[in-house]
Amino acid sequence: MAVECGIRILFYIIFSVFILNSCDGAATDIELDAKAQLLHRLDSLNLLLYTFLLILTVLTIWTFKHRRLRFLHETGLAVIYGLIIGAIIRYGFTTNSAILHMPVVPDNSSKYNQSVPPDTLWLRFPEDKGGGLIKNKTFAYTFRGEIYKEDNEIDLKATFDPEIFFNIILPPIIFHAGYSLKRKYFFRNLGAILMYALLGTSISAFVIGALMYAFIQLIPHLSTSFTFLDTLYFGALISPTDPLTIISIFNDLHVDVNLYALVFGESVLNDAVAIVLSGSIQNYAERYQSGSGGFETVAFFQAFGDFVGIFSLSLFIGATMGCITALLTKFTRVRDFPLLESALFVLMSYSTFLIAEASDLTGVVAVLFCGICQAHYTYNNLSPDSRQRTKHLFELLNFLAENFIFSYIGVSMFTFPKHHFDPGFIFAGFLCALLGRAANVYPLSFILNLARKPKISMNYQHMLFFAGLRGAMSFALAIRNTVSDARQAMLTTTSLIVILTVILQGGATTQFLSWFNIPVGVDEEIEGLSQNGVRNDGSVPTGAKPNEKALLARIWGDFDTRYMKPLLTHSRPTLLETLPVCCGPLARILTTTQQMTQDDVSRKIDSDSDFCLEDREMERRRMNVQPRKRNHDDDDEDDDDEDLRIIGMEGFIPLRTL
Amino acid sequence: MAVECGIRILFYIIFSVFILNSCDGAATDIELDAKAQLLHRLDSLNLLLYTFLLILTVLTIWTFKHRRLRFLHETGLAVIYGLIIGAIIRYGFTTNSAILHMPVVPDNSSKYNQSVPPDTLWLRFPEDKGGGLIKNKTFAYTFRGEIYKEDNEIDLKATFDPEIFFNIILPPIIFHAGYSLKRKYFFRNLGAILMYALLGTSISAFVIGALMYAFIQLIPHLSTSFTFLDTLYFGALISPTDPLTIISIFNDLHVDVNLYALVFGESVLNDAVAIVLSGSIQNYAERYQSGSGGFETVAFFQAFGDFVGIFSLSLFIGATMGCITALLTKFTRVRDFPLLESALFVLMSYSTFLIAEASDLTGVVAVLFCGICQAHYTYNNLSPDSRQRTKHLFELLNFLAENFIFSYIGVSMFTFPKHHFDPGFIFAGFLCALLGRAANVYPLSFILNLARKPKISMNYQHMLFFAGLRGAMSFALAIRNTVSDARQAMLTTTSLIVILTVILQGGATTQFLSWFNIPVGVDEEIEGLSQNGVRNDGSVPTGAKPNEKALLARIWGDFDTRYMKPLLTHSRPTLLETLPVCCGPLARILTTTQQMTQDDVSRKIDSDSDFCLEDREMERRRMNVQPRKRNHDDDDEDDDDEDLRIIGMEGFIPLRTL
Repeated sequence: MAVECGIRILFYIIFSVFILNSCDGAATDIELDAKAQLLHRLDSLNLLLYTFLLILTVLTIWTFKHRRLRFLHETGLAVIYGLIIGAIIRYGFTTNSAILHMPVVPDNSSKYNQSVPPDTLWLRFPEDKGGGLIKNKTFAYTFRGEIYKEDNEIDLKATFDPEIFFNIILPPIIFHAGYSLKRKYFFRNLGAILMYALLGTSISAFVIGALMYAFIQLIPHLSTSFTFLDTLYFGALISPTDPLTIISIFNDLHVDVNLYALVFGESVLNDAVAIVLSGSIQNYAERYQSGSGGFETVAFFQAFGDFVGIFSLSLFIGATMGCITALLTKFTRVRDFPLLESALFVLMSYSTFLIAEASDLTGVVAVLFCGICQAHYTYNNLSPDSRQRTKHLFELLNFLAENFIFSYIGVSMFTFPKHHFDPGFIFAGFLCALLGRAANVYPLSFILNLARKPKISMNYQHMLFFAGLRGAMSFALAIRNTVSDARQAMLTTTSLIVILTVILQGGATTQFLSWFNIPVGVDEEIEGLSQNGVRNDGSVPTGAKPNEKALLARIWGDFDTRYMKPLLTHSRPTLLETLPVCCGPLARILTTTQQMTQDDVSRKIDSDSDFCLEDREMERRRMNVQPRKRNHDDDDEDDDDEDLRIIGMEGFIPLRTL
Repeated sequence: MAVECGIRILFYIIFSVFILNSCDGAATDIELDAKAQLLHRLDSLNLLLYTFLLILTVLTIWTFKHRRLRFLHETGLAVIYGLIIGAIIRYGFTTNSAILHMPVVPDNSSKYNQSVPPDTLWLRFPEDKGGGLIKNKTFAYTFRGEIYKEDNEIDLKATFDPEIFFNIILPPIIFHAGYSLKRKYFFRNLGAILMYALLGTSISAFVIGALMYAFIQLIPHLSTSFTFLDTLYFGALISPTDPLTIISIFNDLHVDVNLYALVFGESVLNDAVAIVLSGSIQNYAERYQSGSGGFETVAFFQAFGDFVGIFSLSLFIGATMGCITALLTKFTRVRDFPLLESALFVLMSYSTFLIAEASDLTGVVAVLFCGICQAHYTYNNLSPDSRQRTKHLFELLNFLAENFIFSYIGVSMFTFPKHHFDPGFIFAGFLCALLGRAANVYPLSFILNLARKPKISMNYQHMLFFAGLRGAMSFALAIRNTVSDARQAMLTTTSLIVILTVILQGGATTQFLSWFNIPVGVDEEIEGLSQNGVRNDGSVPTGAKPNEKALLARIWGDFDTRYMKPLLTHSRPTLLETLPVCCGPLARILTTTQQMTQDDVSRKIDSDSDFCLEDREMERRRMNVQPRKRNHDDDDEDDDDEDLRIIGMEGFIPLRTL
């Protein structure tokens, strides 16, 4: 019985694939309901396909990890499986198109004089003509897009709405990047990371844009369809590097933490930079087209203003929402109910993305900085249960989302209907992507090395250059807009660059690490200990100088320790100690009992403490505070809280000299 | 600076709402791109609205829990907030419809002679006529649905595609129900639960259907628009009771575990029954309409066959996928990588839903039984990390999904365009829903009490009747199809019944529990201990008789312990002990080293052990095995594995006498 059922189900599943493909709509008894059901099943099959791909990827990753094979990484695997399945779908089934389309014209009676196409169409089959079998019925149709080439019809097979990438798949990936950032090393290398990400990505985009434009002039059939803005847009979307593949290899191998911080910090930030940059280029293009033509200085500065404004406002929204969450978790006892707390955390983080998107800013940037703030402040207020739960949740979501996106890149290579293969453009794309990366890494490293204490060695520079895989963000930007031939050629080139860099560069990372003599097997904890060890034995460990922190990071670090952390978390010193005396009442309100009564041990919970100097500063501070405290305690025992506060104020050494 | 930015953002957000509503499309310079961006922002705002509602709900729930208020439950809160926000959207903003629609007719040149409407339309604005400002462009439109009343246009404001409920929101809720089922008490009350869920729901559906039909004959304007099948469909969709509200109250109060099992088990299963039942009624309606009219015996039996077939096949798919996951986790060492393991678990579970949906079965039923199997078998194979991770993940998803669905029920009451308020139908609906519940609980309890050992007391019956809140499943079924007037009246009535029962009955549960003298504050662990205490002091604790288990459950329990658990998990006894000797080689393959070498302590991990009798059976078995084992060990020390196996075979007492 069970076997029979199983076989029947198998047939069900197998045949449902064929039925879907052989249904050419010729049968006259198919009802509308059945059609809707068919579409629902198509949706389910589509999702099932990717779920199956992910299961396959998971199992293969396990086999690889189990057997300690490293020549192919998980994202590479997802891409390869995607390619195989995509090819099977494309060539395995003869699809005499299940999609019926029909040209229509406006009704005679309609008066439509708007500049945008209508949102919905009502199709009424007239009784007299058309030869249709459906009469006297009205059907609603919703707007989908403009058709540029009529033979290139919209095919729903195994493709997703690109908006899904931006609203569902990207946010957890980017948030996780921010949430799991190793902030200590990130801040220590802040200057270099900002340099590579902000300046480097822009340089790379312009270099690639210019080179591509020059290249395209050499190929007659391309020169007509690409403008300089098109190639610049291509430069912007192909510039961001992908953290996923390289970082999980670094994680496995315990690569030197500073290199890790450079690569991770840069890739995370340049995703954010690239999305804002590409948006600004589009805005510029719009203003440019409506203007007089030629290089428009005003439009250029507007675009630059856009870039700065959107980036900083998005950053501000993200940071604000992170801080609000921190305040909510600090001043309520929601931590007594970990489920509610985790739900609040997730909802606040996702709403950050939505608020930014709804106000025409960049959700990706907002959610990235929200993630950093959540990790920096809110995480310290969470109950142990919620800490683990949120970490686990975003780890899992990130894993699923990134593997989904790479599977999709593979599948869509064959199934996405809007590919345009142009060998010349593809070759130029590969070459320029390499040159653009080089134009980012080497000159900027040279400039950085002029000021930086532990210089970035040539080997590290080579590794940085090599770590420039392209990934999810490039693909998401490329697939967002595929209306013109130029855009379709960009999508194809981007897909190919992503696939090849992920498979080849990802697979060769281990090899390259050993070629470039990058220290692997570095245990972060040991590294951290050697930091503290500086003062014990007087020797300075290689690769970790105490004074390498940038001035900016120092000032921010001080401000953070004195005002932000005491305000947003339960950390010590409290605001009562750090704020001027005149703000006493305010400080009292903003300081919780828990903050007052806890002992210093609880501070250690925040193991990924972000400032290396902090420990020493704290120690210096405490050494000045503790003795006085003891003296004071002897004098006056009755009001301990008041006590602590006064002592704090007195004992605090202003660090403004820094 | 920061304040300025903040204000600017606030304005951004506030104005973006107005811009969206005031945009009537009259401005001629709005580009297509801007339109797409507007739609994207509308989507984001829409999602943001619900995220905001959920944040509000979470914070209020916390306040309520914190202050120990019990007059309103979290789902009730979500509904009320939804209603408030829905009303604000509906009446707060004057919406001079941002949606432009346009009647179209087929092109003269088109030859279209199919019985289904085309999937996509290509709208071309002709150069000569129409007065439109867009010329020589072609736009694609996709099919959305049939329009029955042209004034009732499709409005996108704050509504979701009902398909989202079925594909995204319901699966985690249902899976969680299965995964968190307290199987011990569920199986102990299996007979009663199956009776209430399978038979009771069907009775309730038919009683409600018949009563509604009779009622409708009294109201002239309704009698024309409703057929008996319509009212029967209404009966099927309003019959399932909702576990969420009542169960979380029971959880808070530690209500008597048997009542808990009855209420939870029934509500979980009757969701599954109702969805299959309503599907069968729809199939019957289709066959009926294509037939000769009148009561069709063949169609009726086909519908009954559908019901049984779809239910059991879906169950089979769910159970199979659960077992496959168990085998995968048992025979691979994927547990060494908890992230991969959790991902595999989630993907396998979701693919169960998709497989069932893609093969025209019922995903909800499949995912429910998949959840039960995952908890029963796979859970035992998972690494501790994955156990916690999956529990936490589904708990959180369930929480978010259920609160989302209740918020949406509230909001849609005002914003969903297809409501049809008919006081007569609404009144009849309320009355019949009550009567239908009574027709389920009281007669079946009477029948059950004829055979059942610890009888279901009248107070318990009243509580079961009272626990018949309607919830997510009723709403999801009602909103799935809203094409006709009858269906729209059903949706409105269902929404109102859900809202009122959740708020009123949910809020009064604590009160009712004390009225009916239901034992609360029962600690399951203590209850469990008193179970074991039976043999110690000879007394039988009230409310927990050892012999109450149904024969069916007994047979299954034995089979499960002897074959299923040893095959699918690392539990003892192994298959080597339970399978006949002839199957030795097979049994050896299917038994892991871990299974052989572990000590009995590891069995205790499965704390929610599903059979109360199991402990005693196991003990009896062990008492027969252990002494012989010891004897045997003395004889032969060299081959311990072989040893254990032989002993197992000899020492095993066949329980076929049961």
